[in-house]
Amino acid sequence: MNGSLVVVGTGPGKAALMTGATQTALARATDLVGYGPYLDRVPRRRHQRLHASDNRAELERARLALSLATEGRHVVVVSGGDPGVFAMASAVFEAVEAGDPAWRELDIRVEPGVTAMLAAAAEVGAPLGGDFCAISLSDNLKAWSTIERRLTLAAEADFVIALYNPASKARPHQLGQAFELLKKIKAAATPVLFVRAAGTADAEVVTTTLGTADPSRADMRTLVIIGASTTRRVGRWVYTPRGERGTP
Amino acid sequence: MNGSLVVVGTGPGKAALMTGATQTALARATDLVGYGPYLDRVPRRRHQRLHASDNRAELERARLALSLATEGRHVVVVSGGDPGVFAMASAVFEAVEAGDPAWRELDIRVEPGVTAMLAAAAEVGAPLGGDFCAISLSDNLKAWSTIERRLTLAAEADFVIALYNPASKARPHQLGQAFELLKKIKAAATPVLFVRAAGTADAEVVTTTLGTADPSRADMRTLVIIGASTTRRVGRWVYTPRGERGTP
Repeated sequence: MNGSLVVVGTGPGKAALMTGATQTALARATDLVGYGPYLDRVPRRRHQRLHASDNRAELERARLALSLATEGRHVVVVSGGDPGVFAMASAVFEAVEAGDPAWRELDIRVEPGVTAMLAAAAEVGAPLGGDFCAISLSDNLKAWSTIERRLTLAAEADFVIALYNPASKARPHQLGQAFELLKKIKAAATPVLFVRAAGTADAEVVTTTLGTADPSRADMRTLVIIGASTTRRVGRWVYTPRGERGTP
Repeated sequence: MNGSLVVVGTGPGKAALMTGATQTALARATDLVGYGPYLDRVPRRRHQRLHASDNRAELERARLALSLATEGRHVVVVSGGDPGVFAMASAVFEAVEAGDPAWRELDIRVEPGVTAMLAAAAEVGAPLGGDFCAISLSDNLKAWSTIERRLTLAAEADFVIALYNPASKARPHQLGQAFELLKKIKAAATPVLFVRAAGTADAEVVTTTLGTADPSRADMRTLVIIGASTTRRVGRWVYTPRGERGTP
């Protein structure tokens, strides 16, 4: 039997931000594999098997999905946002590389989606309008020194910086450390945005500056954006001009 | 009369990658403003006025859209991809900042979409699976020296690098210069991806390395991704592991 595996992202939360291609993949699946809260966003269909797992168990979840596809099932692995950005697609290919050689022959596809920073940016205007970078602040899988080095170089490059996973119960102090480091390079007046639950009905935006930003405002549902030197407010919006002079 | 302005992106090309929220905004518009080829992707509706313009005239197009909204029209500005990433949303806020103070009172919204690098990454696996940056190689609005500085710092940070606008008829040599610069910092074996027409039925992928990449492969429809030190091939896919060690 020829099974298949599609890795999808549900987008930031509300169904209207899911692509049609992702909805089609979900409708065709025999098996859905994912972190429970993401599976909850997917409409229930008869005869579909659900395999919910804990948030941390990415590799285990990837291996389960690959095994099911080998058995001939049509499996969809469900992430939030875009599956290729700090989500499940990498874990699936890590599992392929380390696992059963038969997995390399499987029909595996990734469907792109709306990742959190795009939804967060849209809530406030166009802060990602210039060159930008995305950094996960989680040190579960990389050294904090690597993160500090990337933050420093990103600030020196004058990138707009989108921070994924800015804080969790296990890591309450890292965002404050990141702000301290960025303050040495970026101006105190640099706009900082805390966007919570972007792309959902509960979205909340706090617009502040690097000099006054309170890191305790961030939680696991928050995306933090730190502006470039040109990022500015106009009316109730924040945007980064396309050019480096920054004057319209 | 209360007009409105929504800035949307059609995604990479095929309708199945447009979000439901964007389709709804398009259906409700009285006026569509955009670069001709993007407007061509939108289903025609009776009574809707189309305002097609040239690719370069972003600010003029933004001002037209804002004027129409002030007249009470429900205007949708149509970009490709995500409107906040090297697209129309920034131009709209630049026009607001420099224009009629009444424009600041308008009902303006941005709808997020699937930007080109996410569609390109999905075509090949998960190359954006670690920290990454997005740089536009166009020097229409910023100095080439700024671009070179950002490329150097991005390479030193070991970011995966997504290059938007890698080449055009007016700028045939810059991608080659960028590769030369990156070769001084990144290993020759670093995976380089040329993804043309990502997220469309015509998608083409070339997987090569920094040491052998031919910059003339890129055109205006190409997105170029240069891996981090951990980016690797497995079977026919390319991915960046979540952790810095890069070994599954």
